[in-house]
Amino acid sequence: MEISELGEFGLIDRLTANLPTVNPSTVKGVGDDCAILRNKDTDILVTTDLLLEGVHFDLTYVPLKHLGYKAAVVNFSDVYAMNGHPKQITVSLGISQRFTVEHIEELFSGIRLACKIYGVDLVGGDTTSSRQGLVISITCIGEAEADKIVTRSGAKPTDLICVSGDLGSAYMGLQLLEREKVASAGKKDFQPDFGGKEYLVERQLKPEARRDVIEALAKEGIVPTAMMDVSDGLSSELLHICKDSNVGCRVYEDRIPIDYQTAVMAEELNLNLVTAALNGGEDYELLFTVPLTDHEKIEKIPGVKLIGHCTAPDLGCALITRGDNEIPLRAQGWNPLLKQE
Amino acid sequence: MEISELGEFGLIDRLTANLPTVNPSTVKGVGDDCAILRNKDTDILVTTDLLLEGVHFDLTYVPLKHLGYKAAVVNFSDVYAMNGHPKQITVSLGISQRFTVEHIEELFSGIRLACKIYGVDLVGGDTTSSRQGLVISITCIGEAEADKIVTRSGAKPTDLICVSGDLGSAYMGLQLLEREKVASAGKKDFQPDFGGKEYLVERQLKPEARRDVIEALAKEGIVPTAMMDVSDGLSSELLHICKDSNVGCRVYEDRIPIDYQTAVMAEELNLNLVTAALNGGEDYELLFTVPLTDHEKIEKIPGVKLIGHCTAPDLGCALITRGDNEIPLRAQGWNPLLKQE
Repeated sequence: MEISELGEFGLIDRLTANLPTVNPSTVKGVGDDCAILRNKDTDILVTTDLLLEGVHFDLTYVPLKHLGYKAAVVNFSDVYAMNGHPKQITVSLGISQRFTVEHIEELFSGIRLACKIYGVDLVGGDTTSSRQGLVISITCIGEAEADKIVTRSGAKPTDLICVSGDLGSAYMGLQLLEREKVASAGKKDFQPDFGGKEYLVERQLKPEARRDVIEALAKEGIVPTAMMDVSDGLSSELLHICKDSNVGCRVYEDRIPIDYQTAVMAEELNLNLVTAALNGGEDYELLFTVPLTDHEKIEKIPGVKLIGHCTAPDLGCALITRGDNEIPLRAQGWNPLLKQE
Repeated sequence: MEISELGEFGLIDRLTANLPTVNPSTVKGVGDDCAILRNKDTDILVTTDLLLEGVHFDLTYVPLKHLGYKAAVVNFSDVYAMNGHPKQITVSLGISQRFTVEHIEELFSGIRLACKIYGVDLVGGDTTSSRQGLVISITCIGEAEADKIVTRSGAKPTDLICVSGDLGSAYMGLQLLEREKVASAGKKDFQPDFGGKEYLVERQLKPEARRDVIEALAKEGIVPTAMMDVSDGLSSELLHICKDSNVGCRVYEDRIPIDYQTAVMAEELNLNLVTAALNGGEDYELLFTVPLTDHEKIEKIPGVKLIGHCTAPDLGCALITRGDNEIPLRAQGWNPLLKQE
C-alpha cells in the first residue's frame, strides 16, 4: 500500500495500534503534543541517535525488521552504559517514496520487538516524507538510581579495565556482508555464503544491549567507576574514559576477547585481527572500570573479561602486545564525519 | 573550514563550548552516553520533531540561524501546548558535504539563542554525515505540574474555544518567500521585495512559542480543558481536539484573528483568506478550550481571542460563515506524507 493513501496520521495510527505501555513512569504515550512521564524516585537518562540510509545502513543486505531492532537496541545500550535501564523511546522517521506501508510496518515490527524484549515503551515520534532514503531518529529515556549512575569520568589510576562479550565480530560481519554484496552484483538468484559465519552476521545485523551484564553487576554489588558502551571501537572508548577520568591505561593484547569466527574471517580477508578488535566498532559491549578490590567479584560474572588496568595519567594509554611491546592506543574507529565520500 | 578537519568529536566540542546549564533538573548535559535529569516534583513532557531539507525548509531563502531558532522553538511550542515549560533539548544533525563548520555554527547559534531566550538547556545529541542535505532532529523535554497538564481530550460540550495571536500569516510569509525565490531565479544581485510585509516573513522564518500565553493563563488561574499548538492549521487541530474529547464545535469566520498584512497578501496572490487562516499551518499559536465560567478571565488576556464553542459530538464540527452558513470543517493542512512529489 502506498503511504500517501494513509497520510501521516493514518500511518501513525496503524504503526501505534495495540501499543500497551508497561512502565509505571509512562503516564501517557503516543497521541498528544508530548508524551507524559513521571519519575519521582529515579534520575532520568536521555540519549539519542540519528541513522541515515547510505551512511549507517545499506538496505541491500539489512532487512528492515533487523534495522528497526538494531536502531532501538543501540539506544538502549547507551542507557545501560550509564548503569541505567531504558524505559521509553520516541521514534522519528523520514520516509522516501520507494517505501510502502508494509515496509514501514516491517521496520516498526523490529522496533516493537526490541521494546518488548527490553521492557521499553514507545511513547512518541514524528513521521514525514524524505527526498532521499530512510531517516531514523530515536531518542531513549531511561531511569537510574542517582547514586548508581556511572559516567565516563570516575576511573582511578589503579582500577581494573573490563569488557563484556567479544570484540571485532560486528565489524567482521559487516566485511562479510559487503563482500557478498559485491559478489552478488548483477547476479540474479545469488545466494550469499554465510556458512560457519552466522555469528558474525548476527552481531552486525541484530546486536543486543548488555542488560544481562548490568544486572549481573548489580547482583554482585558492583558499581563501576566508569563505563561506556563500545560503539566506535575499544580504542576510541578507552581514550574517552582515560581523558575524562584523567588516567592512563595499559591493555593487554592477549586479554582482548575475540571470537573464533572473527579470527577465521580476519585470516580469510587478510585483515589485522587486533586492529579489527580495537577499532572495528558496533560491538555494543560494555567497557568499564572497577576498583582492584572488586577483582574476585568480577571473575564470577560470566562473559566479562579483565583486559588491563588504569595508570597514572602521565603514563599515557597503551596496548601491551603479545611480544611485550608497548604501542600507544589511537582512535581509529568509526567517525562518520571523517568518512564522508 | 571543512567539517572533516574536525571530525565528529571536534565538531561537537566546538558547538558545545561554553554551554552552561540553567535548569535545576539538568544534572549533566553534553559529554557522556546519556544526559542526566532529575525531576522529583514535576511530570516530564517529551516531544520530538524531524526536519528534512527540501521537505521542511528551503535554504535558498531560510538563513541557517533562523532555521536553528525555528527548529528549537517548534519543539518548545509542543511543550507549552501541554501547559508545561521546556527545559532540555537534544539536537541531532545529519550534515552533507556542502556545509562547512561555519555553516553549522551559524545553525547552532540560532538553536542556542532560542535556548537562551526560553531558558532551555542543550543536553545532548548526535552528529553525523548525510548523503543528501541537512537533517535536524530535536527532542525536547519539559516539566509540568501533574494536575495542570492539558491534553487534547478534556474539552466539554459547552466549552469556549480560544486561540492566541493571528492565523495564516506564516503561510502567507511562505507564499511571499516562494514568490520572490521564483522571481530571483537566475538573476544576480536580485533584491527580494518584502516592503510592508516584514511581519509575514518574520512569522515564517522566526516564529515564537507562546510562553507568554501559558504564563498569562497561569496568572489568571485558568487551566484549559484541552489545548494544542497550531502547527498543521486551525481546522486540523480543532478536529483533533474534537475527536479526542468527543465533542463537536462551531467556530465563527468573523472571529478568526487575521493580521492586516495577511489579508493584503491574500488579495495580492488571489488566495482565499479564510482557507489560508484555517489551513495554512506553522502558526505556532495556542488553540485551547476553557469552561464557560472562565469567559471573563479570558477576556483579560491580551492577544487571546474567543473564536467559537464546543457542542455535543453529534452536531459535528463546522465553520459559521459571515453569511451565517454552516460549512463542515475539514483538515486540509500540512500533511507531509500526502504531499510527496
